Amino acid sequence: MKHYKIAVLAGDGIGPEITQEALKVLKVVEERNDVAFELMPALFGACAYFATGDAFPPETIAICDQADAILKGPIGLSHEESKKIPVDKQPERGALLPLRRRYNTYANFRPVSLPKALAHFSPLKPEVIGEGIDLIMVRELVGGLYFGEKEMGVNAEGLRYVRETLEYDEVQIRRIMHQAFKLAMKRRKLLHNIHKSNVLKSSVLWNEVMEEVAKEYPEVQVVNFLVDSAATALCLKPTQFDVMVMENMFGDILSDQGGGILGSLGLMPSACLGDDKAYYEPSHGSAPDIAGKNIANPYSMIGSVAMMLENSFGMEAEAKNVWAAMQGVFAEGYSTADLSKPGSGVKMISTVEFGDKVVEKL
Amino acid sequence: MKHYKIAVLAGDGIGPEITQEALKVLKVVEERNDVAFELMPALFGACAYFATGDAFPPETIAICDQADAILKGPIGLSHEESKKIPVDKQPERGALLPLRRRYNTYANFRPVSLPKALAHFSPLKPEVIGEGIDLIMVRELVGGLYFGEKEMGVNAEGLRYVRETLEYDEVQIRRIMHQAFKLAMKRRKLLHNIHKSNVLKSSVLWNEVMEEVAKEYPEVQVVNFLVDSAATALCLKPTQFDVMVMENMFGDILSDQGGGILGSLGLMPSACLGDDKAYYEPSHGSAPDIAGKNIANPYSMIGSVAMMLENSFGMEAEAKNVWAAMQGVFAEGYSTADLSKPGSGVKMISTVEFGDKVVEKL
Ligand SMILES: CC(C)[C@H](C(=O)O)[C@@H](O)C(=O)O
Ligand SMILES: CC(C)[C@H](C(=O)O)[C@@H](O)C(=O)O
Repeated sequence: MKHYKIAVLAGDGIGPEITQEALKVLKVVEERNDVAFELMPALFGACAYFATGDAFPPETIAICDQADAILKGPIGLSHEESKKIPVDKQPERGALLPLRRRYNTYANFRPVSLPKALAHFSPLKPEVIGEGIDLIMVRELVGGLYFGEKEMGVNAEGLRYVRETLEYDEVQIRRIMHQAFKLAMKRRKLLHNIHKSNVLKSSVLWNEVMEEVAKEYPEVQVVNFLVDSAATALCLKPTQFDVMVMENMFGDILSDQGGGILGSLGLMPSACLGDDKAYYEPSHGSAPDIAGKNIANPYSMIGSVAMMLENSFGMEAEAKNVWAAMQGVFAEGYSTADLSKPGSGVKMISTVEFGDKVVEKL
Repeated sequence: MKHYKIAVLAGDGIGPEITQEALKVLKVVEERNDVAFELMPALFGACAYFATGDAFPPETIAICDQADAILKGPIGLSHEESKKIPVDKQPERGALLPLRRRYNTYANFRPVSLPKALAHFSPLKPEVIGEGIDLIMVRELVGGLYFGEKEMGVNAEGLRYVRETLEYDEVQIRRIMHQAFKLAMKRRKLLHNIHKSNVLKSSVLWNEVMEEVAKEYPEVQVVNFLVDSAATALCLKPTQFDVMVMENMFGDILSDQGGGILGSLGLMPSACLGDDKAYYEPSHGSAPDIAGKNIANPYSMIGSVAMMLENSFGMEAEAKNVWAAMQGVFAEGYSTADLSKPGSGVKMISTVEFGDKVVEKL
């Protein structure tokens, strides 16, 4: 029997609720496979800060270090609440970025996927969805502005100023490109390279390395897109994209736009892979306004479990089952509040009911 | 009689075609008002580089220096073509950024506006457009990553690397905030402040200064939005926004997303205001693939003229006429190729026909 240790970081806001549903799914997978999942829950994010004074406390680090994979819920506080915590202790700077840095999870995969049959979820017209949206954004996750030096102070003229640096070296770019090209080879052999080389020198190097790596994948067709044009195109014709690769900040913005075109960030799971460790998380925030109400969409969290099954445990068939079970729930006309607005014709179910229905279908 | 000098930088790609239509409109305005527009055409962008070796040549600078306002078409080459020009001579780095820097046009106003009656132009469903989209993005235009130091080289480990800096000081932030708050006071007194303070220190200072300035405009309701959430919300519920304020790069990406939700970047005019000089330009690129075909949408260029009439010449009534004339063309069911796809029910007209119809209606 295989034995896997999973660090479970439920996070803040809706995190615990949607994690609960994801764990139900994991339990079913465990029961019917020759595998044991050892769950190791740990505090992470604002909850950890309030309990220990540290958003990513040593006990959590120890658990993550031991784990074969990390399942992480969304973290963070509302704009107003977050002011109560010193800037560097806030969950994003104090926990999430350190997590990404510690395990060097440089490759973030964010599927943006909506079958034609679910076009009604989307704010886009059915004719824009066409045969369905099915793209994956590959986001560089441990470089760029997020991890550069930061300096805040008062300058010679007595003015408050701030300076931060965006850095990339060729190794950082090359490894994410390989991930993107490999994924493209497994899919439609089409790669959209997102950049801003007409202004940013970082994009000049980005494109240079991309072209070098491209030579190793001659079958892949590369299409270059300025990041601003990509933002236009994602609204006008999202179906043109299959695999998109981009640096950290661009990936943050465009992937959330991706959630927008699907109809809900609740449809955005993700995998964050390093060379030795991987963690899995929804792409969205902790939605403090709807926390504790049993209305959040657990899709992104259950989807993250599916990505974990596939990437960390090689359980591709079970991953497919999980995706199919969720699609099955949608196919019966059910969804959570985010996707069942009055008049949409979608039958509203709670977070727990969604999880239950997925389990039934598994 | 008032006399105004206008530098006319037709630019690259579709620039000359759409500029032609904008000038027709300007002529009509001139004829029926006690005003003379002295047009001073000048080379700018790739066309200038090919003619003179300089994308923003001294003659053009001299003309712009003298001008009361600058009307600028889109510039730039296709990804492949631009490789033929040294990076720093390329139209964006060699002309556009220097133009913005020279005249310190820090306040970029980008209306994203679509009346309910034109909801069919948008890729969004009519129920998402509701009573119409009518927002203005206020983009800081001369700071941030665009204008920071840039360094490319080989590091101690022999790796190619690149580093660029994002800088803001409180003066830069304060002045754009005043612009945004003043605009909000003239409109719905609602301001969405776009930032990424959970990661970027620049956003921490940005928000700090925003809160200070907000005290001077107690009637304005401020809503804070993370840039990634804003990208989601622009798709899901664009009608919640009225005035949005953001730093340079965020404004680049979100405003192009704005063009996406309207249905075409051709609907995106803009005004770029400094304390002493202003220039006006479409928010989009030069679309080399459709250049010379008489199919480009001149709306963004004619709209930029309208913004010039209002902001630089105080001709508010004429500006309104120009907007109304363009809406009139749309109301009769006509538009250019970008907005008259087969099956849309919109009657396709050419660039020139669009200009002619606007002139007729004026
Ligand atoms: C919470 C935040 C730091 C994070 C990011 O910007 O990376 C989130 O928005 C995401 O996309 O994973
Ligand atoms: C051409 C480019 C440099 C420019 C920018 O990024 O500012 C354009 O995209 C815009 O939005 O005006």
